[in-house]
Amino acid sequence: MPERDLHYLTELAGQLRVDSVRSSAAAGSGHPTSSMSAADLMAVLFACHLRYDFEHPDNPANDHLIFSKGHASPLLYSLFKAAGAITDEELLSFRKRGSRLEGHPTPRLPWVDVATGSLGQGLPVGVGMAMAGRLERLPYRVWVLCGDSELAEGSVWEAAEHAGDEGLANLTLIVDVNRLGQRGPTRHGWDTGAYARRFGAFGWHTIEIDGHDPGQIDFALGDACNTRRRPTVILAKTRKGEGVVEVENREGAHGKALKDPDTAVAELGGVRTLTVDVHRPEIMPQPYRFDDGTLTLPEYEPGTRVATRTAYGEALAALGAARGDVVALDGEVADSTKTEEFAKAFPDRFFEMYIAEQQLVAAAVGMQARGFVPYAATFAAFLTRAHDFIRMAAVSQASIRLVGSHAGVAIGEDGPSQMGLEDLAMLRAVYGSTVLYPCDANQAAALTAEMAGISGVSYLRTTRGDTPVVYPPGERFPVGGSRVLRHTPADRATIVAAGITVHEALAAADELAADGIPVGVIDLYSVKPVDKAALTAAATTTGNLITVEDHRPEGGLGDAVTDAVSELGPRVVKLAVRGLPGSATPAEQLADARIDRRAIVEAVKRLL
Amino acid sequence: MPERDLHYLTELAGQLRVDSVRSSAAAGSGHPTSSMSAADLMAVLFACHLRYDFEHPDNPANDHLIFSKGHASPLLYSLFKAAGAITDEELLSFRKRGSRLEGHPTPRLPWVDVATGSLGQGLPVGVGMAMAGRLERLPYRVWVLCGDSELAEGSVWEAAEHAGDEGLANLTLIVDVNRLGQRGPTRHGWDTGAYARRFGAFGWHTIEIDGHDPGQIDFALGDACNTRRRPTVILAKTRKGEGVVEVENREGAHGKALKDPDTAVAELGGVRTLTVDVHRPEIMPQPYRFDDGTLTLPEYEPGTRVATRTAYGEALAALGAARGDVVALDGEVADSTKTEEFAKAFPDRFFEMYIAEQQLVAAAVGMQARGFVPYAATFAAFLTRAHDFIRMAAVSQASIRLVGSHAGVAIGEDGPSQMGLEDLAMLRAVYGSTVLYPCDANQAAALTAEMAGISGVSYLRTTRGDTPVVYPPGERFPVGGSRVLRHTPADRATIVAAGITVHEALAAADELAADGIPVGVIDLYSVKPVDKAALTAAATTTGNLITVEDHRPEGGLGDAVTDAVSELGPRVVKLAVRGLPGSATPAEQLADARIDRRAIVEAVKRLL
Repeated sequence: MPERDLHYLTELAGQLRVDSVRSSAAAGSGHPTSSMSAADLMAVLFACHLRYDFEHPDNPANDHLIFSKGHASPLLYSLFKAAGAITDEELLSFRKRGSRLEGHPTPRLPWVDVATGSLGQGLPVGVGMAMAGRLERLPYRVWVLCGDSELAEGSVWEAAEHAGDEGLANLTLIVDVNRLGQRGPTRHGWDTGAYARRFGAFGWHTIEIDGHDPGQIDFALGDACNTRRRPTVILAKTRKGEGVVEVENREGAHGKALKDPDTAVAELGGVRTLTVDVHRPEIMPQPYRFDDGTLTLPEYEPGTRVATRTAYGEALAALGAARGDVVALDGEVADSTKTEEFAKAFPDRFFEMYIAEQQLVAAAVGMQARGFVPYAATFAAFLTRAHDFIRMAAVSQASIRLVGSHAGVAIGEDGPSQMGLEDLAMLRAVYGSTVLYPCDANQAAALTAEMAGISGVSYLRTTRGDTPVVYPPGERFPVGGSRVLRHTPADRATIVAAGITVHEALAAADELAADGIPVGVIDLYSVKPVDKAALTAAATTTGNLITVEDHRPEGGLGDAVTDAVSELGPRVVKLAVRGLPGSATPAEQLADARIDRRAIVEAVKRLL
Repeated sequence: MPERDLHYLTELAGQLRVDSVRSSAAAGSGHPTSSMSAADLMAVLFACHLRYDFEHPDNPANDHLIFSKGHASPLLYSLFKAAGAITDEELLSFRKRGSRLEGHPTPRLPWVDVATGSLGQGLPVGVGMAMAGRLERLPYRVWVLCGDSELAEGSVWEAAEHAGDEGLANLTLIVDVNRLGQRGPTRHGWDTGAYARRFGAFGWHTIEIDGHDPGQIDFALGDACNTRRRPTVILAKTRKGEGVVEVENREGAHGKALKDPDTAVAELGGVRTLTVDVHRPEIMPQPYRFDDGTLTLPEYEPGTRVATRTAYGEALAALGAARGDVVALDGEVADSTKTEEFAKAFPDRFFEMYIAEQQLVAAAVGMQARGFVPYAATFAAFLTRAHDFIRMAAVSQASIRLVGSHAGVAIGEDGPSQMGLEDLAMLRAVYGSTVLYPCDANQAAALTAEMAGISGVSYLRTTRGDTPVVYPPGERFPVGGSRVLRHTPADRATIVAAGITVHEALAAADELAADGIPVGVIDLYSVKPVDKAALTAAATTTGNLITVEDHRPEGGLGDAVTDAVSELGPRVVKLAVRGLPGSATPAEQLADARIDRRAIVEAVKRLL
């Protein structure tokens, strides 16, 4: 590398450090030291290897850069300033109310694809983007910057396995091995060989370098670009707080603005006004798109018995024929969730993520960032494994569709480890989420198709066993709606149910009607948002609501109903799964959990 | 190995296969083929290497066996039968209502330490048990049987890293590499070398064997026992459904009873009545115990300002002095959660689990199985990473104490990725859980001590910033209680708050009182179970409740309150965090989320 370039890169890195110190000082908080360790790495990336058009962040040819170590946001924003994307004034708004420059990056900035800040998520999401790049047949690269501490997260190794096995050569991981975590030294310190052995075992090309040497960095980044059939990890030995004696390579200097920023800036060579000319992709290529067609949803005969999971699988396959942007991801249970119907029809758009639910959800997040419409399915119980990824997907304002099968005690003999009993609580509490729970096959098919158009995190809860088809095919079930399945003006109470318990509620209503007690039944298939109007009508006319759900009493259907009517003050009785189930048949489980028709009848009689 | 022994082992394995087929056939479901692949491995383990006293499952010298592949429960129960722990009659009750022999093993059986069935959890929990063994200075071994599919779970690699780095030589992982997952072939098929390279890179001793050859198995198990300073993984190549042509090494034969069990039993050599004489530890040793002392909780002066996380840390250190069985685990944020106070005082009982929240919780589960009283702490937001482990801890009926710091928008500038806004919903929905949320330092200290005696999963939510001390030291705050902080007979509404919002509620009540609107304030520090009596009294006297929480509107404090009073029908207005926060100061965040004193005042005035 010519001396002139070396000088420029060193100066640019100095500016990035200075701006990281300045922005953190202006905020009075932040992570300057974690930014300073990676400044040389990013200076060389931006100046020599990144291909990105800051004026057109939607250019499909743009590379993607994920700051998995999101706390190094001062560095990222300093890079944006150097690239001319933001002003120095905006840089100094860091962490202030209303600023786009948040403590950790979010897609409120047009050059940020996904939110980071929960460590160990950047690489799995980057895997999803690299998968998307293959599918789009685009030459972009995915660069992920992560810290050494976060390599302790299992999700990193789910991603390492998937990327290595798939040979995602368009993915490069840059690890800022600065030796110091938040609390103290990391497990492996500066032993980059320890990390190299691990990534190497997972099939990666590994490069160990001095992360403050522009020449070595440039070589490594170039080597990553030239490596075929394997992802590359660059393990860069760095010093946290590099360049400022007060903090350099010292414990106790994590996550704080520097005490004396003026001295630090002087020590770093003072404020500079360099710009970095990031290489713009010359063309704006057309991504490859799979064909669209017409949507012909499966139809199920009322009165027959079909599992909602089966309807999901068949509807997803139908949706795949209609929309080329739909992709499906599986946690190695596609035969159970019935995603296999899609896999058979569209193998190119089906992705087996194996039993790695964090990577499953992260891949969906990565692919939606490139415009795909992902459906990711596993057992409802096992989606809890990916809770933090779902939470962060909401912060990313990502549109992903999750499907949880085998919900509730109704699965029967397999026992509590396989029962999704907390999934509604988990998904309802996610920002901006939509939670759907169909009771029959036609409804499940319609909602599966509906989800394609939903923004944010949406969730479909399906049932293992066959259930009666109650709706004719072709009906629409809008998000936020409900269906009144039984109603007379004489109703003395209203049963609110969803999914498997709708059928128990209908049976109970019939039994009560025969006993001279007319009750209404509402199918609350949209658990979030709920149909407040329908619930308000029921609450004000009968004044007595009974909610029944195959879920824990906390955070599910019952809470959604009580919340919707809480300012009206009706009486609400909640039936839910309160004990710890064992093995039993589905019917025995519903009876033991006191959410079957008999329990409903008794609850209504007790209430009245 | 003598011919006689080989013959016995082969026959015993045959019996285990036969009994797996028979029990699954009697149930009409189950996983016989996943049992058959591991039958030789377990026959040799039970006959030659396991040290276990079935009559005294609490003998501290007993080894621990975790069936991480919990779906192979027919094999486990067949082993119990062969060992004389259960009868053949009970074996055939498999998966039936009321049977202890559930679809997946749970501690309803005295020889099962922890529930399994969510894959990838056995090894991390085994790591916790192996850590406990060191602490107890006991010679027991921890054996974990897992499948090859579950090696895709990141949690396995969190455990591999911890065990390798700690050199847990008392831990042996046996992998039943039968090549076939639920849906089809695994990623690496029979390439045991692929797994060996990975475990080897993580510092494990690796052995690759034919998992149907008793001699090789015996050698490998012995080698594991004799290996020092490293954990051992035995990678055993096996055939799923081994011994029965109908299913052997065939796809589509997962998780089903065999179609023709009689033929299969005949093919396997018929029913046998062998017993296995598991080696009993000769002595019942006394585990090493750390000293107990007296409990002197820290005391905080009312009117001063102290963060509840600080009180947690100081109280935990005090508790450590009082109880030798208390241990603390950290997700590399002990300086933030303040677990560092304990770490400084009791380094031998402090465990740095690094940024690996699944392993953090799993280690707590493993250690409590040996009688320790673990406290595991990280940011509330990052506990979502371990949701599935927390859920399974409840199925295990494990007593673990979780602490989530940095709850809510009140953290301020760091932004949404760091904000625990879903943790109350997650923890409330866990079976048998206790959820505590202190508002001041003395309360936090008292509740920290209280948690030591709580069975099941308990959770303490702490706040980042300093908050006023409102209670004098020395008061008791029982689980399920609450405190009335403002009350007059003239109250027109009652504000229910917890944690940070208690202080906003008090300020709002003062402002409303000055405006001539008397309102009550309840500190609902016990979010689960809730103080139904106090809420009922408030609901029936004022008829108007306002709940305020630094949490999503779903599944938290507001839902707990509406649930408690839902049959009474008061009006309830819920204030909670509804938008997506950015960066701002703590006070700005509370105001923007509409959960500060002003928002409360306005809500009360609107309601009345």
